[in-house]
Amino acid sequence: MTIRHIALFRWAQGVTPEQIASVEEGLSRLPAAIPQLLSYSYGADLGLGAGNHDFAVVADLADDEAFRVYRDHPEHQAVLAVVTPLLADRAAVQFTLPS
Amino acid sequence: MTIRHIALFRWAQGVTPEQIASVEEGLSRLPAAIPQLLSYSYGADLGLGAGNHDFAVVADLADDEAFRVYRDHPEHQAVLAVVTPLLADRAAVQFTLPS
Repeated sequence: MTIRHIALFRWAQGVTPEQIASVEEGLSRLPAAIPQLLSYSYGADLGLGAGNHDFAVVADLADDEAFRVYRDHPEHQAVLAVVTPLLADRAAVQFTLPS
Repeated sequence: MTIRHIALFRWAQGVTPEQIASVEEGLSRLPAAIPQLLSYSYGADLGLGAGNHDFAVVADLADDEAFRVYRDHPEHQAVLAVVTPLLADRAAVQFTLPS
């Protein structure tokens, strides 16, 4: 089985493009730092739907243990320390991908 | 480019496993009905994180036009007619996958 982890962010009022670029720069370094990441994608909402969140992160991991390694990895925690103060809202799900 | 569409659902109080199974049954028929779906995955939250939503759908589509075909397709609209009355909350993002 593979676990797909999804996190959707809504930025707080006043968050700047420079701050979002800093988040993306941090995320871009994670696949090389965390070998448990089988696939990693993220990006800003395209504006195709009303009421959408602003940004998505999708991480595919082999199992629960790999998810926990990713979640607790110091490089990931460092990115979260940048992201968390910028959030108005976060929505997340982890589900099992069909094999 | 590929567009990745994500929708996260939080079920309303009182939604039953049978109703969720009906949603999954409807979703399972969409890849055969909508050739624009390059990849389609969905599933219930695994309970690994506090405060998570309950269910995720991830659809990969070639471009904006393919996303709109999926969004407006009668078979997809029929599933939405089942899903929407069951929702307490929905969060969504469409973003561009790296090529």
